[in-house]
Amino acid sequence: MRRALVLAATPGVPLGPNPRVGCVLLDDAGATVAEGFHRGAGHPHAEVEALRAAGDAARGTTAVVTLEPCNHTGRTGPCSEALIAAGVRRVVFAQTDTNPVAEGGATRLREVGIDVEAGLMADEARAVNRTWTFALEHGRPFVTWKFATTLDGRSAAADGTSRWVSSRAARLDTHRLRGLCDTMLVGTHTVEVDDPELTVRDEVDEPVAHQPLRAVMGLRDLAPDRRILNDRAETVHLRTRDPHEALATLFARDRQHVFLEGGPTIARAFLEAGLVDEVVAYVAPMLLGAGSSAVADLGVTTIADALHLHVSDVTVLQGHDGEDTNVRLTMTPTQTQRSS
Amino acid sequence: MRRALVLAATPGVPLGPNPRVGCVLLDDAGATVAEGFHRGAGHPHAEVEALRAAGDAARGTTAVVTLEPCNHTGRTGPCSEALIAAGVRRVVFAQTDTNPVAEGGATRLREVGIDVEAGLMADEARAVNRTWTFALEHGRPFVTWKFATTLDGRSAAADGTSRWVSSRAARLDTHRLRGLCDTMLVGTHTVEVDDPELTVRDEVDEPVAHQPLRAVMGLRDLAPDRRILNDRAETVHLRTRDPHEALATLFARDRQHVFLEGGPTIARAFLEAGLVDEVVAYVAPMLLGAGSSAVADLGVTTIADALHLHVSDVTVLQGHDGEDTNVRLTMTPTQTQRSS
Repeated sequence: MRRALVLAATPGVPLGPNPRVGCVLLDDAGATVAEGFHRGAGHPHAEVEALRAAGDAARGTTAVVTLEPCNHTGRTGPCSEALIAAGVRRVVFAQTDTNPVAEGGATRLREVGIDVEAGLMADEARAVNRTWTFALEHGRPFVTWKFATTLDGRSAAADGTSRWVSSRAARLDTHRLRGLCDTMLVGTHTVEVDDPELTVRDEVDEPVAHQPLRAVMGLRDLAPDRRILNDRAETVHLRTRDPHEALATLFARDRQHVFLEGGPTIARAFLEAGLVDEVVAYVAPMLLGAGSSAVADLGVTTIADALHLHVSDVTVLQGHDGEDTNVRLTMTPTQTQRSS
Repeated sequence: MRRALVLAATPGVPLGPNPRVGCVLLDDAGATVAEGFHRGAGHPHAEVEALRAAGDAARGTTAVVTLEPCNHTGRTGPCSEALIAAGVRRVVFAQTDTNPVAEGGATRLREVGIDVEAGLMADEARAVNRTWTFALEHGRPFVTWKFATTLDGRSAAADGTSRWVSSRAARLDTHRLRGLCDTMLVGTHTVEVDDPELTVRDEVDEPVAHQPLRAVMGLRDLAPDRRILNDRAETVHLRTRDPHEALATLFARDRQHVFLEGGPTIARAFLEAGLVDEVVAYVAPMLLGAGSSAVADLGVTTIADALHLHVSDVTVLQGHDGEDTNVRLTMTPTQTQRSS
């Protein structure tokens, strides 16, 4: 299973909304007969990849899969039937597939007498598909809210200048995190004021080949010259101010992980709706003393009502060539948040 | 010399304003004959400790000392004369003593024909006496400004409540840092509003035996019931608003390391005067959205004028029992600061 998990986590795949899956076929002695992993929508599932690689040698093997084999005919046939047809004797999988259109693989395999073991290293398998699993279970995308702040909580100086609060290393890191999401979300106000292109760029500042969806939220029309409307990536305008509605629309488009980069107002709306699942803060060792706050008024008036965050990671982003060293904190909200 | 530096850095010494010094006497074969370190004002210097331990065996040895042997008669006689009288053949020291009342030891030793080598591991020796060296060279105490802030730059909620922004681990860590200084400094406003006792307490919240001086700065009278005036430690009221004047008074009292814990106004005065040498910030992963700013308006209006800090250390202070994990950043100002 460890090897299957490594296969599932092959860098760069899958492209699209499908989960990452790895599969290893083992003979009776425990030796590997064949391996496979899923490369993304339109490509064969991991089990089929492994079965093809094995050919006739698949007969009598044990299939070790990170996700319950699917039981539906999509762009590829059901994996349950492929495993049956290939004569696999036993199936061990980690995470149960609760996707209504795909579930039932284990039941089908057991029906024809195949020995099925479920749940081996299920937590690890869920972690490999963290946001896919989250979206499936919650019926909405996972939301990561990112913001950058000076040590004294400012996102810009008094005259509005903010280039740059974050160091180059922090900005590169932000592009890396954007690339791990399938959607970037800002408000119409940010588009109007900052005119971001909102693309994922690599270390030499070139746009990467596969860009996440660019989503803008808000009722205002977008001026046609805005950079977010260029052809570097797809853009969608969500004409709502309601975070629930915005996420529902994105979920209907198979979006699983939203990277929220808007200003304090949109962040406040998501925080108050309890729709922030992860917070990434870049702290710049800089003091401004005045200027825009990085975080909007949250309606908190007394210390007991503060929004506490559980710190899961602290990473120092070392500065080079005289640049500031920034600190990235990755956190999850720890309190039940107030409803809007 | 490595051993001498370890001796110099013996925990808990010296008590008082004297530098930390270690001394090792070596025979011709390089074997240790005796060791000594300085325990603080009123106790023998490191060289004298080592000579006493060696007795007659000191004759013909090499004395390895972390600081140039002193040449003056204070509460103890000059170390140069003691080394000469004991028949030491050679002296190797690290840091040169530029203290006007003590300097000249090397010259005196050379006068009587003793072989003297200066500067071995001088940087390491200076680091052992970082603030003593700084105070000697700058004619004022080294200033560490400490503040605690939420991730969004607040030191208290809108209603003024602030217990606690910092975690228990961060507060314990603050007491540890206070204990490394010889003076804690706040403004009269902090005394009036927060009424801190400003003592160093240990892990079970008991005051430690040797307390730094408590200094209050400002023109206002202190109400006699303020906790800072209790008998747990000595307190001095500096009746000035000028940071230069305050530090001059403290330097005249042999103070070498001031731990500045006042609010934003006093911190601003020191920052603007260019009198902050180190910044320690405790960042709590908490959002308030409103409330008092941890840092006062610094007169910065545009991003190019931001006060940048060089990060020398980032330490994660793990939370226990549901407490927040705090992050401590230790920094030094990187720009020439504006004069007031």
